[in-house]
Amino acid sequence: MAVRRLDAPRDVEVPAELLTTDAHDLVARDDVDLVVEVIGGIEPARGLILEALENGASVVTANKALLAEDGPTLYEAAEKAGTDLYYEAAVAGAIPILRPLRDSLVGDHVTKVMGIVNGTTNYILDKMDTYGAGFEEALAEAQELGYAEADPTADVEGFDAAAKAAILASLAFHTRVTASDVYREGITEVTAGDVASAKAMGSVVKLLAIAELDGDDVSARVHPVMIPRTHALATVRGAYNAVFVESASAGDLMFYGQGAGGEPTASAVLGDLVTVARAKVLNTRGFGESAYAARAVRPMGDTVTRYHVSLDVADKAGVLAAVATAFSEHGVSIKAVRQEGRGEDAQLVVVSHEAPDAALAATVQHLREMEYVRDVASVMRVEGAV
Amino acid sequence: MAVRRLDAPRDVEVPAELLTTDAHDLVARDDVDLVVEVIGGIEPARGLILEALENGASVVTANKALLAEDGPTLYEAAEKAGTDLYYEAAVAGAIPILRPLRDSLVGDHVTKVMGIVNGTTNYILDKMDTYGAGFEEALAEAQELGYAEADPTADVEGFDAAAKAAILASLAFHTRVTASDVYREGITEVTAGDVASAKAMGSVVKLLAIAELDGDDVSARVHPVMIPRTHALATVRGAYNAVFVESASAGDLMFYGQGAGGEPTASAVLGDLVTVARAKVLNTRGFGESAYAARAVRPMGDTVTRYHVSLDVADKAGVLAAVATAFSEHGVSIKAVRQEGRGEDAQLVVVSHEAPDAALAATVQHLREMEYVRDVASVMRVEGAV
Repeated sequence: MAVRRLDAPRDVEVPAELLTTDAHDLVARDDVDLVVEVIGGIEPARGLILEALENGASVVTANKALLAEDGPTLYEAAEKAGTDLYYEAAVAGAIPILRPLRDSLVGDHVTKVMGIVNGTTNYILDKMDTYGAGFEEALAEAQELGYAEADPTADVEGFDAAAKAAILASLAFHTRVTASDVYREGITEVTAGDVASAKAMGSVVKLLAIAELDGDDVSARVHPVMIPRTHALATVRGAYNAVFVESASAGDLMFYGQGAGGEPTASAVLGDLVTVARAKVLNTRGFGESAYAARAVRPMGDTVTRYHVSLDVADKAGVLAAVATAFSEHGVSIKAVRQEGRGEDAQLVVVSHEAPDAALAATVQHLREMEYVRDVASVMRVEGAV
Repeated sequence: MAVRRLDAPRDVEVPAELLTTDAHDLVARDDVDLVVEVIGGIEPARGLILEALENGASVVTANKALLAEDGPTLYEAAEKAGTDLYYEAAVAGAIPILRPLRDSLVGDHVTKVMGIVNGTTNYILDKMDTYGAGFEEALAEAQELGYAEADPTADVEGFDAAAKAAILASLAFHTRVTASDVYREGITEVTAGDVASAKAMGSVVKLLAIAELDGDDVSARVHPVMIPRTHALATVRGAYNAVFVESASAGDLMFYGQGAGGEPTASAVLGDLVTVARAKVLNTRGFGESAYAARAVRPMGDTVTRYHVSLDVADKAGVLAAVATAFSEHGVSIKAVRQEGRGEDAQLVVVSHEAPDAALAATVQHLREMEYVRDVASVMRVEGAV
């Protein structure tokens, strides 16, 4: 076992002769069949994993960042050496999602994957939903309870979820998607007003990692989404994770559980370890990369989405007509409108039909510039039947 | 393809030369590598599957009844012939549950599995919960909409769920549990009052297939259960299925999706088919039976459960004391009591702590015979934190 410090305090007693600080020396040994990498980050993890694979060892890793940045390189090294590369712990902790996608659903046609794959942001949004808290307040509570780190950027800006979105998109659609292909918006701009607006619609705000097939292309994105409370993903509370899969024959599936933590990660790593060991004993291999489909990643502007827009407008005749015209000028058709007068002002809530994201964004920009529109109070993408 | 009638109308056109009515002849052929059995029931399915396995073919089946009655015989035949036996479709349709239990969680320690594995009964109970309907009314609606069969016995009496409970218990605890080992109560006795009583507690009534480890023993049972609405299983509506797994390291996991129907079944069968074919190409085998633990199945009376009891009692001093004494005489301690006066009468709701089921049943019998107790309005087992 390679560690940073030989004398660091450990929960489990490990005989001193099993510890080393020289990881390179360890992975290069002749008698190593399998290397478990739980360092995280790009380097030195990548170098060590490649060394291990080239040396004929199989690798089990929980390293989502590396897989999302450079998965194909690792897969190619494993392929060349005839060894295994497993990483169940990289997405949604102990929730088995890689095997269902690689194995159980292999005879089906997956069309969309939507995941709550970051426990920190789900915890924060859940608190905002439950107590009407603002983002800063909910973040502070999450930090106090250990659900968020002192520097929460990787979580709240969606970087962690984007890495997982890339892995999910690659697996679900048998192609190569990297973290940099993923459109990313975090939750720092989500306000108590957005959450209240969702609540009034019978919906809830979640940060989703979405991988979707659009014709032959793939859309991979992370952003806050309004989903109806009747959707299975809406029931995922606290720091829990869940991955919702839409497929042609199996229909809708959801996989739910703890997304993070030492023990769930250990469970997933051990499951992989046994699978890889079993394959070795049988003198065979597990799954290799399945990337037979070279798919383009669709830019966000061309991706079809739906918007929920809440506007503070002057309570005058003609306002609704003007707003409706703004939508139609951008080729966006309206699915539902709700207007509530409040004396001088009115609140206008519009839910669009599906349209390219760029057209929706342009519509919102147009609304911001309209005389009648006092404030664009909330803009949120929508998933699930509303 | 062996069929009952060569000229039956089919959705898919099948060339006549691929059809036969002689299934035995088909499974005995030399050029058959893999047999898919979707006949259902014990015979002739068992004979055909054994013939196929003995003949060196692998078998993919959706036959829960046969697996729950005689799984070990099939496994032994597969083991002897060095072939594969897969049956993902047998439990919870297309929801991948066999692979997670056999593979992903193999390094973990599963302690309990609770499944909503019968869509018909979940549909009925959901309608009773949503509209306050009685059992007969909800069943009639389910039959009208095709969610229940004209003879609903297998579903509403829990036989279907019991077969699945046996399969889940065998897989989760690496032992052999058959359908006849499973304690079974259906939902025909569940009243609108039971459901209303659950609702008042913030709970919902579900028919659960439960497989639980108790020391070295296994408890396998199917019965109506009151679970809090905050539990992930409470959110499973309509005819959907879900399997909730508690494990030592991964924590709580849930697998959710469509439990029945031709397409979900086809998806699961195809997934198995590809897995088995892949193993054949690699000249290896998939999972065999994992039954290394010879566990006793604990009789229901000795199984530890919790009860929710709702009583109509005389509104007099001393009633609560008398009821509490009845519980303590049977060694059952009380977790919570709620009493509501209604003039002459009062309603007394008691939730017990954990106790052997026989002691709880004896307590209820005792309550029925008490002078002060006018009616034992509802008795229901409880799972999840209340």
